[in-house]
Amino acid sequence: MLESWNDTPTRTAIDDFVRLVTTDGPDFVPPEGRIATFDNDGTLWAEKPIPIQLDFTLYRMAEMAEANPGLQGEQPWKAAFEKDMKWLGDAMVKHYHGDDGDLGLLMGAVPKTIADLTVDDYHREVTEFFERADHPVLKRPYRQCGYQPMVELLRYLEGNGFTTYIASGGDRDFMRPIAGHIYGIPPERIIGSSQAIEYQETEDATDVLYKSEMEFFDDGPTKPTRIWSRIGRRPILAGGNSNGDIQMLRFARGPGRPALRLLVLHDDAEREFDYTAGAEDALARAAEKGWSVVSMKDDWTTVFA
Amino acid sequence: MLESWNDTPTRTAIDDFVRLVTTDGPDFVPPEGRIATFDNDGTLWAEKPIPIQLDFTLYRMAEMAEANPGLQGEQPWKAAFEKDMKWLGDAMVKHYHGDDGDLGLLMGAVPKTIADLTVDDYHREVTEFFERADHPVLKRPYRQCGYQPMVELLRYLEGNGFTTYIASGGDRDFMRPIAGHIYGIPPERIIGSSQAIEYQETEDATDVLYKSEMEFFDDGPTKPTRIWSRIGRRPILAGGNSNGDIQMLRFARGPGRPALRLLVLHDDAEREFDYTAGAEDALARAAEKGWSVVSMKDDWTTVFA
Repeated sequence: MLESWNDTPTRTAIDDFVRLVTTDGPDFVPPEGRIATFDNDGTLWAEKPIPIQLDFTLYRMAEMAEANPGLQGEQPWKAAFEKDMKWLGDAMVKHYHGDDGDLGLLMGAVPKTIADLTVDDYHREVTEFFERADHPVLKRPYRQCGYQPMVELLRYLEGNGFTTYIASGGDRDFMRPIAGHIYGIPPERIIGSSQAIEYQETEDATDVLYKSEMEFFDDGPTKPTRIWSRIGRRPILAGGNSNGDIQMLRFARGPGRPALRLLVLHDDAEREFDYTAGAEDALARAAEKGWSVVSMKDDWTTVFA
Repeated sequence: MLESWNDTPTRTAIDDFVRLVTTDGPDFVPPEGRIATFDNDGTLWAEKPIPIQLDFTLYRMAEMAEANPGLQGEQPWKAAFEKDMKWLGDAMVKHYHGDDGDLGLLMGAVPKTIADLTVDDYHREVTEFFERADHPVLKRPYRQCGYQPMVELLRYLEGNGFTTYIASGGDRDFMRPIAGHIYGIPPERIIGSSQAIEYQETEDATDVLYKSEMEFFDDGPTKPTRIWSRIGRRPILAGGNSNGDIQMLRFARGPGRPALRLLVLHDDAEREFDYTAGAEDALARAAEKGWSVVSMKDDWTTVFA
């Protein structure tokens, strides 16, 4: 089942855990309790050099500035419209130097890029984006930037009675239109950040539309609460790759229950990217607590299908 | 499959709709789109003379007053502790006369009854409640107050590839521990009102606990937004019984798609209760738009198993 995995201690840990919870004994978990939750950006698909959703957001901003020339002189629409990667890069550099002015402009504009769209409109926009958008460095369609070994892991777990969920800081409704295609995970099993929505009706029609504010930012300590809200159970297996996943990984161990925690390590500059920024605390905790680290270089025979 | 249903136009409408969406043709809906959402109080289980959840809340308040005598002189704990049904009934009468003072005290106290409990604590409390609590009028355990014909309908729909959900104004985590037992619906398919929750951790343990405020009150125009948030699809079949279900029933008809809307009518004083208060607008709309009304008296051979 795990064709793209090398025969390593991490793969053994996965096999052992699945055997443990599916075999009669003190650690047996009935199928309804076999809940596995995975982060998305950097865990199931590539997140460098910029998160895929941010690329979509910049595309939407350019589209908005195209339709509304007044926005073409106003940041961050100006940078998106002019494809001014320097302004966007500098916003991050300023952020690291303690000046959040430009990053604040960018983040404040994100909800506006889908405000007043119906959920069906947004679904269509995202679907179209994934039909044509390519990864700028990997030079392959974004829809082919999911990690093949992780897709195999999802199928392996499901084949052993697990139910798999995505629990991501990324926008829930950005993942939903594409997650079936890439991961085989349906929309009701996508947990993520969410923009506030509201119901509207006319005499003949009903719709749900996005408001211009966030509802949940599903990262860090919010992940366990969103998982509980959506599933009503504690997972027994969780996978992540960054500090924002620590609480989810910890939450996967309930009192007196077995748990497997997987932490994807980006150490493969040749086939993907090599970075640990933003994952320092998670890696330290993994070492301390014996969580399983997934080395892309050592554990995977291939990264992308 | 629908053994407890008489051979009536409503039953025919259900059969016809299921055949329509499962048979090749212009109205065929693939299984992943066969989403059915049902209200709970008054639709799947009895809600008179008081909602089951309110009975539990009064029990919790009495328990709190027992443990904390200072509360025994303070409304609404005083009424709950003294089983003063007159105070509780008068609060409703005052409400109908425009004085929300006492009802406000009651509603404001509800979130406090589970504040600071872990989700596991609450699950246990609710489970214990359903092990011993009886319906005060029907004289049967609350856990046997689900409507047998509706349980059959859930199984009939699932047998035809539908996925069933509960979308209730009742508290999500109050329904979850018992919905599997009564309806065969697992926790991840329970949508409802929710109390705000937060993640807490110590060096050795993690938990999710209730805060003392509401997160969502899942009624009226909020129902379609909670359905979208949880499922990411529009239902094609919805069942309700009150004005608070109108928007959900309307939302079930997407553009150019078939839909079945069911409205349960409580017209059976002998076997259950006879009331339309709070359902007037829904019944008017059902008559105008041809929604299917489920008469408990005429459509059902039995109400409870």
